[in-house]
Amino acid sequence: MSLHPPHAACTAQAAALKRIAAIVGSDWLFTSDEATETYLDFFAPGDAEDHRACGAVAPATLDELRAILQVAREAGLPLWTVSAGRNLAYGGAAPVLRGSLVVDLKRMNRVIEVDDDLGYAIVEPGVTFFSLFDHLAHTGSSLWISSPAPGWGSVIGNGLEHGFGPTAYGDHSQQICGLELMLADGSIVRTGMGALPGAATWPLFKGGYGPSYDLLFLQSNFAIVTKMGIWLMPRPEAVAVGHVKLAREADLASAIETLRPLRLEGVIGGVTSMRNVLGTAAGATLRSIWYDGPGPIPDEVLQRMMRQLDCGWWTLQFAHYGLEGVVQAQLARVRAAFESIPGARIDATISDAAALRTPARGGGGSRVGLPSLNALGIVDWRGGTGAHIDFSPVLAPRGADAERLHTLMRGMIEQAGLDYIGTFYNFGRAMALICAIVFNRSLPEEMAAVRSLFPRLIDTAAAHGFGEYRTHISYMDQVARAYSWNDHALLRLGERIKDALDPHGILAPGKQGLWPTHLRKAG
Amino acid sequence: MSLHPPHAACTAQAAALKRIAAIVGSDWLFTSDEATETYLDFFAPGDAEDHRACGAVAPATLDELRAILQVAREAGLPLWTVSAGRNLAYGGAAPVLRGSLVVDLKRMNRVIEVDDDLGYAIVEPGVTFFSLFDHLAHTGSSLWISSPAPGWGSVIGNGLEHGFGPTAYGDHSQQICGLELMLADGSIVRTGMGALPGAATWPLFKGGYGPSYDLLFLQSNFAIVTKMGIWLMPRPEAVAVGHVKLAREADLASAIETLRPLRLEGVIGGVTSMRNVLGTAAGATLRSIWYDGPGPIPDEVLQRMMRQLDCGWWTLQFAHYGLEGVVQAQLARVRAAFESIPGARIDATISDAAALRTPARGGGGSRVGLPSLNALGIVDWRGGTGAHIDFSPVLAPRGADAERLHTLMRGMIEQAGLDYIGTFYNFGRAMALICAIVFNRSLPEEMAAVRSLFPRLIDTAAAHGFGEYRTHISYMDQVARAYSWNDHALLRLGERIKDALDPHGILAPGKQGLWPTHLRKAG
Repeated sequence: MSLHPPHAACTAQAAALKRIAAIVGSDWLFTSDEATETYLDFFAPGDAEDHRACGAVAPATLDELRAILQVAREAGLPLWTVSAGRNLAYGGAAPVLRGSLVVDLKRMNRVIEVDDDLGYAIVEPGVTFFSLFDHLAHTGSSLWISSPAPGWGSVIGNGLEHGFGPTAYGDHSQQICGLELMLADGSIVRTGMGALPGAATWPLFKGGYGPSYDLLFLQSNFAIVTKMGIWLMPRPEAVAVGHVKLAREADLASAIETLRPLRLEGVIGGVTSMRNVLGTAAGATLRSIWYDGPGPIPDEVLQRMMRQLDCGWWTLQFAHYGLEGVVQAQLARVRAAFESIPGARIDATISDAAALRTPARGGGGSRVGLPSLNALGIVDWRGGTGAHIDFSPVLAPRGADAERLHTLMRGMIEQAGLDYIGTFYNFGRAMALICAIVFNRSLPEEMAAVRSLFPRLIDTAAAHGFGEYRTHISYMDQVARAYSWNDHALLRLGERIKDALDPHGILAPGKQGLWPTHLRKAG
Repeated sequence: MSLHPPHAACTAQAAALKRIAAIVGSDWLFTSDEATETYLDFFAPGDAEDHRACGAVAPATLDELRAILQVAREAGLPLWTVSAGRNLAYGGAAPVLRGSLVVDLKRMNRVIEVDDDLGYAIVEPGVTFFSLFDHLAHTGSSLWISSPAPGWGSVIGNGLEHGFGPTAYGDHSQQICGLELMLADGSIVRTGMGALPGAATWPLFKGGYGPSYDLLFLQSNFAIVTKMGIWLMPRPEAVAVGHVKLAREADLASAIETLRPLRLEGVIGGVTSMRNVLGTAAGATLRSIWYDGPGPIPDEVLQRMMRQLDCGWWTLQFAHYGLEGVVQAQLARVRAAFESIPGARIDATISDAAALRTPARGGGGSRVGLPSLNALGIVDWRGGTGAHIDFSPVLAPRGADAERLHTLMRGMIEQAGLDYIGTFYNFGRAMALICAIVFNRSLPEEMAAVRSLFPRLIDTAAAHGFGEYRTHISYMDQVARAYSWNDHALLRLGERIKDALDPHGILAPGKQGLWPTHLRKAG
């Protein structure tokens, strides 16, 4: 067992940093407080200084990256890799371990290849959803991207962190096919068919020969991903985007039960989202226009929100992609299924091929999964210096499970004086409930409430069999501790692999609770 | 580099085997020549003795398995794990390393759990496609299995070896979700959400928290898989099974080009197969009724086969699953697409919900992917002691690539005096061409022809960028050698993980070219 390492002080690594400056040029090593400001966690629920990097370096090439690793090994300098550093609500660009040097891969930003016929792209870490979207638009590609809510994140970073978007390709980590990695010793590995010189199938066949390694490098500090193949959706003939607006909080279980077979049987073929009324309100308005009294927002205010925003207590968004006849048949089945829930209102728009040909950034009714920055509005919900931290437990798509988790979360979050903004995502056989806990960083008592609440959410969820698929850098150890089956056997497996691949322990110490030997503490 | 270890002699490990007999009881340790006969490779293209095990042991519990591992570590006894041992055409139950002890998990054969609502099963290694099918039938489950051609294989073994079936869930390794593993030191690990005590999502969410380990244990000797979650398809409302019979060998490229967008856009949602006329003939008849002259079977005989068997030079099989309206729309599109190829004949049958409710083992027109033993008939094609070895390169689904690979394979195989029986499987973004090389084990010259040919197929395919996803135990090193990018960086990555997880090197030495330290040889 290996949690809670001593936090390294932000020690002077002057000699090592000098060598690194010589590698990348002094323009690309940032060590001043001002320059490293952007690598702090803007949304930290505590003192952002707890996770302050000693600096950041932005290599432009694999050779520069390799040379940086060499210095880090020799100097015992912990590194923290980011692609675009937009892992907001989970720590942004900041390292778990204070004093780490951020390796910012934003300059390695080439779209290496796009193949319209075969439906993939190979990208470098600095490629964002915006830049990939623009690349596809400029080259006249017929492929569509699946962007998470904000489009400024890295395609690689998002995929590696199990990000998702509201599309048929919305479970982004499942679209990964083929990685190029740099190991801690500077050697470069290509996974899967990429190991066969001249193979066209590197970004096409997930299997390869022998063990499949791709997913080992998700949420991982075993290596640095320097290239990734990602599957992209061919522009479909038709798309339907629909919403089901459910009248009552108590409709949750029947909505989840109704949705499950539709997803399992492929009637709805992509990731769906179902947000509560506060989720709809927080995405578009400020809390203060609705309520400024004490305690949680009362039910009558929620009812007013539903009327004025024309949303449900729960609003499910779904989409169909495919042949026009297919989309129509599927949509008819979805309507019929949800009409059985009293008070449910269903709207949907079908767009045909012509309408789908020229989408703009930010999208519209006809397409979801386009890159935008709209989702960022949520941070302003409570005013002041807005921030949010996301609590992301995974659950089975069963009404009773959803009901139980929802009740727990709403109760605990409101008890803490915060707003329960919850969205259920359905990936098919599993769901996640993302609770966006919005707070005002200028109010110390609100920050304190978050810090008191969050660890209790983790433990309470775990006690009910719900585990997080992702978490903020301040809570990575605690979540790892919850995955404790057989005396933390899985974590110990990870530690053995960590020690084998990164014996100096320089890569992202503490990432998802995985520490190198010298920073582990007996549990 | 680590290939070609010295073949250990079938040395006396009498003391170790005695201890193992005491663990499992003498009924479950097999060491006589007669008893270990079934662990020889029936289809060996050479001397089956080259891969003879020193015996086989069939533990019934995890405790017994753990105790066996302890003996193996202490005695330096190499093990070779099989589930059902039906990896025919790739080595059957036989180990790479002569003298290994086969660990046969057939007695660990419980279906732990089936969930109709969530569409999964959790099984032990000894569960076969037949037994899972029967279990589902007896319990009245509405879930469907996806069986490879012969149904006597293990669900776990087949999934771990990247097996496939002709269904929407036909890429079997992609249906794996959640493993229980025993490491070489006897410790037990559950992957993904299985590490969270009480989580219902172990067989539901592939991601988990931190690195995803499941696929690391495919085609691997890093651990022994003792339980596996597998996703099963809910019985669809309707199914269409169709065939496209293409008139000419030269239609290959246009068929592949026509199929690609249909698969990529999900119009055809499952694995398709396209076999050549000899494949159809070899599955149903004997070679001698068609031709017994010298050289390859002449074109006019192939034409006669097409007429008499009512098949194409290439016969594509595809299927649609889903709502009746969806299946109809998709089938219409497939018809329209293939009608553009001159001479193509298309037939298809749609079965509705009522017809789908009571399938029998072995299936029929309305359903594919049912367990049977029909496929085994192919071994009798050339008469005598029939056998086959499969050559399985992966390619991009492009007409030109398929054409190039087909021409190479047909030429080389016929040149060797053997029959070219080729089936292209399409997984979506990738394809495999499975060349079933049938031979008569009672003819030494035919065996010699296979042994001369097979290594050349590997090298020739690799020189053209085609790599195998699976291979016979006698050729695992050579295929591993072909995956040579950056001085075999991927193999060396695997070796580092191997050494970390199995330092005594007892688990399946040589599996897919991965050897423990003491058996590696400088390349």
